[in-house]
Amino acid sequence: MTTYSVLVAYNGAAFSGFARQPGQLTVQGELEHALQLIFRRQVETVCAGRTDAGVHALGQVVSFQVAEDEMQQRGSSAFLRSMNALVHDDISVRDVQLRPCEFSARFDAKYREYRYYICQQDTPPVFAANFSWHVSQALNVQAMQQAAQYLIGEHDFKSFCMAASAEGKPTHRNVHEISFSQDCILGENMLVVKVVGNAFLHSMVRAIVGSLVLVGRGKREPNWMTDVLAARNRQAAGENAPGQGLFLWHVEY
Amino acid sequence: MTTYSVLVAYNGAAFSGFARQPGQLTVQGELEHALQLIFRRQVETVCAGRTDAGVHALGQVVSFQVAEDEMQQRGSSAFLRSMNALVHDDISVRDVQLRPCEFSARFDAKYREYRYYICQQDTPPVFAANFSWHVSQALNVQAMQQAAQYLIGEHDFKSFCMAASAEGKPTHRNVHEISFSQDCILGENMLVVKVVGNAFLHSMVRAIVGSLVLVGRGKREPNWMTDVLAARNRQAAGENAPGQGLFLWHVEY
Repeated sequence: MTTYSVLVAYNGAAFSGFARQPGQLTVQGELEHALQLIFRRQVETVCAGRTDAGVHALGQVVSFQVAEDEMQQRGSSAFLRSMNALVHDDISVRDVQLRPCEFSARFDAKYREYRYYICQQDTPPVFAANFSWHVSQALNVQAMQQAAQYLIGEHDFKSFCMAASAEGKPTHRNVHEISFSQDCILGENMLVVKVVGNAFLHSMVRAIVGSLVLVGRGKREPNWMTDVLAARNRQAAGENAPGQGLFLWHVEY
Repeated sequence: MTTYSVLVAYNGAAFSGFARQPGQLTVQGELEHALQLIFRRQVETVCAGRTDAGVHALGQVVSFQVAEDEMQQRGSSAFLRSMNALVHDDISVRDVQLRPCEFSARFDAKYREYRYYICQQDTPPVFAANFSWHVSQALNVQAMQQAAQYLIGEHDFKSFCMAASAEGKPTHRNVHEISFSQDCILGENMLVVKVVGNAFLHSMVRAIVGSLVLVGRGKREPNWMTDVLAARNRQAAGENAPGQGLFLWHVEY
């Protein structure tokens, strides 16, 4: 068997998340269905980062194994064309790479980069409505930057993990960077929060962004973040920012 | 009576164009319905540029008249909030301005700016699918720039006007600028064609872009544009570029 990975972008609006679920439209379900049609047998996939319903990806990486010569016979371009013809229109398979046999998109990732788009303008977005969280109140970005500094480095992020997912599992993660920039999508003003880390807990980025926005709104002081980390309790952090503003942007191997 | 104008953005995907049509979801229908609910009687609107089904706007300007004190009593912010609460979610009313009594959004426009988004990448866009025309073949932008030069200035654009709309009407227009730039929407690569002119015929920008893309693909030489202009026949130009790539970007008064 040989291991390959595909680079996948998807608009998450239509999907019940990445992970395969019986009877639901999922990204993994679509990819595995296409692989099954191409290779004429069941192909299991592993992804770099599971995404929830509504969450998007530009740089999702998905690995799978096929027999040695199945891909070579076909050729990469033909494989990509077939995949894109077979999957849902809101999924785009952008690249395929040969990997070492033991490669796993999940376990071999060095770090993951997420970006969260907050639409900062008075009136609701019409183009980026599915790609951002509309916060009309002007946020204090300097305070958010200060708050973010408390989260950089290795910490127990249990307070930022969906409670059910955290039970009995390690909840330490290493966050390398949280930074802020401005972007504009078709004339709509965005505050972009970039979050880079070795790995992330379930809905961790959304909980971080939801908490940072509380600080940006002036509802909490920046150093409140130290209390949130210390609490090791999901109730201590802010609510999850909505899924539609989140993008799995890049995974580094 | 007093004249006001509103600045309107809309995602055209859901609408059968701007112009009111019985039994159809249209932008004008939505705006007039909201104005009727707010001012408790029928309010007629005039727009800067009618847009076809699927076409978007960031800077549509719509004028209307109400009795002198109806707007003042209400206040601009409250008016905008009411409008946005009443219209379809894919419409955003972004500003309201008091105008001279005789002002018309259509007849007082000095020039109009449209932008057309062409998605230039191998695989289909997933975020900008409703906001661009996917052309996977790399276009020769230099040739397109040369071709565009033939269209600058005052010309008879009958060849670029939907045939039925051109009959018996003046078809001279003054195109001030056609320029090209690169943009990126959520990681998807765009060639943006900016077209500025005093006014435009029905589907004129789409016919211009469709023709420029023929040149960019190497199917026509740049100086073919002179033949197209001279023909005064819609069959001479390229096919209309699809509506979903087009944005009415700005109207200057």
